[in-house]
Amino acid sequence: MSTTTSEQMDTRILDGKALSRRIKDEIAVEVAAWVDKGHRKPHLAAVLIGEDGASRTYVDHKVKSCAQVGFESTLVERPADISQEALLDIVHGLNENPQIDGFIVQLPLPAHIDDQAITEAVSAKKDVDGFHPSNMGNLALGLPGFVPATPAGIMTMLERFGIETEGKHAVVVGRSSIVGTPMSLLLSRAGTPGNCTVTLCHSRTQDLAAHCRRADILVAAVGRPGMITADMVKDGAVVVDVGITRVEDSTAKRGFRLKGDVAYAEVAPKCSWITPVPGGVGPMTIVSLLRNTLDAAQRAAAGH
Amino acid sequence: MSTTTSEQMDTRILDGKALSRRIKDEIAVEVAAWVDKGHRKPHLAAVLIGEDGASRTYVDHKVKSCAQVGFESTLVERPADISQEALLDIVHGLNENPQIDGFIVQLPLPAHIDDQAITEAVSAKKDVDGFHPSNMGNLALGLPGFVPATPAGIMTMLERFGIETEGKHAVVVGRSSIVGTPMSLLLSRAGTPGNCTVTLCHSRTQDLAAHCRRADILVAAVGRPGMITADMVKDGAVVVDVGITRVEDSTAKRGFRLKGDVAYAEVAPKCSWITPVPGGVGPMTIVSLLRNTLDAAQRAAAGH
Repeated sequence: MSTTTSEQMDTRILDGKALSRRIKDEIAVEVAAWVDKGHRKPHLAAVLIGEDGASRTYVDHKVKSCAQVGFESTLVERPADISQEALLDIVHGLNENPQIDGFIVQLPLPAHIDDQAITEAVSAKKDVDGFHPSNMGNLALGLPGFVPATPAGIMTMLERFGIETEGKHAVVVGRSSIVGTPMSLLLSRAGTPGNCTVTLCHSRTQDLAAHCRRADILVAAVGRPGMITADMVKDGAVVVDVGITRVEDSTAKRGFRLKGDVAYAEVAPKCSWITPVPGGVGPMTIVSLLRNTLDAAQRAAAGH
Repeated sequence: MSTTTSEQMDTRILDGKALSRRIKDEIAVEVAAWVDKGHRKPHLAAVLIGEDGASRTYVDHKVKSCAQVGFESTLVERPADISQEALLDIVHGLNENPQIDGFIVQLPLPAHIDDQAITEAVSAKKDVDGFHPSNMGNLALGLPGFVPATPAGIMTMLERFGIETEGKHAVVVGRSSIVGTPMSLLLSRAGTPGNCTVTLCHSRTQDLAAHCRRADILVAAVGRPGMITADMVKDGAVVVDVGITRVEDSTAKRGFRLKGDVAYAEVAPKCSWITPVPGGVGPMTIVSLLRNTLDAAQRAAAGH
C-alpha cells in the first residue's frame, strides 16, 4: 500500500492498480454469491462508434474487466457514419432490454451526433456512467444514484487508503461535467470521505498557483501534462492526478506515453500521498463502472 | 441604483426591492404581449400544507406577485394532517393539468411527509422551484432547466448591477441543496455572471474567517444571524446576504424582525456592494419564481 524510495522519503503512493485488483476480487466474490442465489450474471453493454484508438482501448479494458469479475458484457460497434437516429434506436433497445443491467456509450461521438441527446436518452436506471442529468442532480443533492466513474473511483481511493478529508481544504482544478464538477460536489457534501471545504478552479481562475498551494487535497483534472509543478503544492498535500494525456514518444512501444497533469518527479517528494500516472486514478475508474453495474443489477432485481 | 451615507462612503446597496419592482414591470410587459398574441395568462399554483406562519407569508407574497405581473394563480391549501398519498394526488393532478404552467409545494412539509418523494413527484417541466434532481443536474451540467429561485435571483442581481464576476474568487458559506450548493455551481460555470473561482464552505469548514477574508464575492447562506462579522470581510468585497431569520423583538409590529447572516452595520462600510436584509435577496427570489413560471408557459406553448 505504500512505497518509499530514497528521494521520496515520506511520500506514499495511492496505488490504484493494486487497489483496483483488490476491489475487483471483492466484486467477483460478490457476483459469485449473487449468481449462487439464482440471479443471472450482471450484464454491461458498451457502445463504440467509429475507430478512435483511445476509445477502443478504454472499451476493450472495460469488456476485459467484466470478464474478470464474472459479468456478462456486450460490445455494440458501429461505424462513424451512423446516423443519430440509428444510435438512438440502439440506446432505446438497450434501455428496454431486461437482460442488460447497465450500459455506456463511449465518448466522444462523431461530430454530427449530439452527445447530449444521446446521454439524455440513456435510462437513468441503466446510466452506469452517471452522465444523465438526473444522476448528476442526485449527486448534487446527496441522493442515491450513479456517480460518474472517475470521481467515484477517487472517492473510493481516498476511503480505502484512509485519507482524512473531514474539514480539509480540497482544491479541484478543472470544472468538467464528468470529473471536476462532480468531484467538487462529492468532496464538499456530508459524508466520509467528504466534508471538505472545496475550491473549484478552472481556466478563468486568477493566480491558480496560490489557490493550489492552499490545498490539503489537490485534484488535477485538466488534461495539460505537467501543469501542476512543485511550487504549486503545499508540503504534505495529498495529490490526485486525473490527467491522462497521450504524449508522442517514439521510444515508447506504442509510440506514445501517458502523462498526468502533475509534474510527478518534482511534486511527489512534497506530498504525503500521490497517485502515479498511469496506475493511479485510471484503474479506479473501471472499478467504479463495475461497481455501478453490479448496483444496477441489484437495484433492478429489487424492483427499483 | 446606489445610495451613499456619511458612514458608508463608498458602499453601494444591492437594492433587491427596487430591482425586483423593475423586473416585475418588465415581466408584466412581456406577459401582456404574450396574452396579446392569443396565449392564456401564465398560471402558477402554490400548495400550502398546514399553518406555518412564515410559509403562509411566503406563499401570500408569491400569489400577490402573480397578480402584479398579470399571471393567474391558484392556492391549494390543505391541513397539516393530510396524508402523503393525498398530497401526491394533488401533485399528480397539477402535473397533468394543462392550465397550470408551473407549481410549487411550499416547504417545510409536516414531519410525516417525505419531502423528497413530493419534490421528485413534481414534473420537471413544471418544477419552477428548480428542486427536482433533473433540474439540479441540468444546472450542474450547464444545461437549460429551472434554477432554484434564490440563487437565480442572486445571479440576476449581480448581472443587473454590473458586478464583475469573471475570474473573481467567490466564497459561498452554506451548502444547502436550495441555495449554497446551486449558488456555487452557478458562480463557477462558464457564463456571465459566472467564471468565478468558487470556494464552498460549511459547518465543517476549518478557519471559516480566513476563507471568507479571501472572497471578492461573499455569499452567506447559513441562517445564523450576524455570523459574518467585519473581520471576516476583505475591503472592497461584494457581500450577498441570503439569511432571513426571524428574531423575536417585542418592539417590532409583528413581534419579530428579519435578521441576515451578515452583521450589516459593521460589515457594510468595508464593502463595495452589499445586500440589505430585508430588501435584498428576498424580493429577487420571488421575481425568479415569476420568471421561471413565464419560461415554463413559453416552453409549454413551444411544445418542449
